[in-house]
Amino acid sequence: MHFTSENTSDGVTERHFLLNDVPGILWTPDGPGERDRPLVLLGHGGGQHKRAPGVLARARHLVTAHRAAAVSIDAPGCGDRPEVAVLRDHIAEIRARAAAGEPIGQFFPGLNAAIAERAIPEWRAVLDAFTETGPAGYWGLSMAGAIGVRLVAAEPRITAAVLGLASADGLIDTAKAITVPVRFVQQWDDEFVPRESGLALFDAFASQAKTLYANPGRHQDVPRIDEVEDSAVFLMRQLAPPR
Amino acid sequence: MHFTSENTSDGVTERHFLLNDVPGILWTPDGPGERDRPLVLLGHGGGQHKRAPGVLARARHLVTAHRAAAVSIDAPGCGDRPEVAVLRDHIAEIRARAAAGEPIGQFFPGLNAAIAERAIPEWRAVLDAFTETGPAGYWGLSMAGAIGVRLVAAEPRITAAVLGLASADGLIDTAKAITVPVRFVQQWDDEFVPRESGLALFDAFASQAKTLYANPGRHQDVPRIDEVEDSAVFLMRQLAPPR
Repeated sequence: MHFTSENTSDGVTERHFLLNDVPGILWTPDGPGERDRPLVLLGHGGGQHKRAPGVLARARHLVTAHRAAAVSIDAPGCGDRPEVAVLRDHIAEIRARAAAGEPIGQFFPGLNAAIAERAIPEWRAVLDAFTETGPAGYWGLSMAGAIGVRLVAAEPRITAAVLGLASADGLIDTAKAITVPVRFVQQWDDEFVPRESGLALFDAFASQAKTLYANPGRHQDVPRIDEVEDSAVFLMRQLAPPR
Repeated sequence: MHFTSENTSDGVTERHFLLNDVPGILWTPDGPGERDRPLVLLGHGGGQHKRAPGVLARARHLVTAHRAAAVSIDAPGCGDRPEVAVLRDHIAEIRARAAAGEPIGQFFPGLNAAIAERAIPEWRAVLDAFTETGPAGYWGLSMAGAIGVRLVAAEPRITAAVLGLASADGLIDTAKAITVPVRFVQQWDDEFVPRESGLALFDAFASQAKTLYANPGRHQDVPRIDEVEDSAVFLMRQLAPPR
């Protein structure tokens, strides 16, 4: 892992890095490091990248409001990374169907599974690189929700997670392996994730502490400021409880 | 309205009052008053009172974490107030059925309606007495949720509400008159409120901004610290937005 650039604005230091050729960003409060500072892994949605507006808003909020650190990487085939043939073919098919006005929601679970298979070892390398001192959480919706269910189930270093905008297809057994506190974000009128499928995924988590956080509207209509603030409060309650 | 006692501990001033013979409590931060300080009306559940543990926890958290004010009154027939014959008969019937092991959830909407009819003018008098300077919100679950739906629908001075643990019985049309931001707290395995009935009430609110906040467990199992913190963050975002 090596850092390739660094800049600081409004109290937030943003450092870009390469980790085994995967480009990423680490956000921290300006100033010296702190012991036990929580780290939140931020996944991005399909077609987005490590510094998409929603990711950047979450990262800056975690740093400025909660003095946490945040880290993001480009998912396989996304952002500054080279195309992956199998993913490219998947995506081309989905785009063609969308252009023809056909429903596409049922194609996302397969695409997300193919991306997650590649993404999970990359996130584990991020944990190896950045979590020597503090607890870690994960926050990802949509494609990053589908990746996150698999990652959180496999990775004991992640002790709290915000997941959501993902259907239950192929994920029920994996979700049953999750026992850490989960906030599950669902859109009540999601055109890609049937309501019952999202609720089935929520029901499947074995976590004693899990909250369904549902808002009206379509897949893209998550109330941005509200969900960012509320999910950060949830994560910090788990990762940095008052002493 | 006149205050009957006052004491301060840990930065919270608690003043008991009588308002047209209704006993209540006002909690404020210790020190001089502040312009535009938000006020949150705290309702209590059936069989509880103005200083029940859940009410007190909410009040103290609003004051200490958010520098808001909170106010609570005994509902008709509850706490330090005299029995009300019609309510007493209602409650006796519910207790008898519970003792016989029969389901009782279907009796709460009628009881709550009878209590709400009396409680709403009392809450409006509280607003008259205490909201000269700032915005007001309402926070109430279970019986206080059923009262709250009616109060918030009728009272334009309340601009945000946490409601929940209430069924849709008799409340759908009332809920359709609510347009302010609502956080709706639901227990996913509520033995008194069928899941579909709670969801129907959530669906009925006309509010553009509404969030379903659902947790596993029975009626009494609302995760206490989490819900208190999260609901307070929601209310304060509406009542005291950053300038």
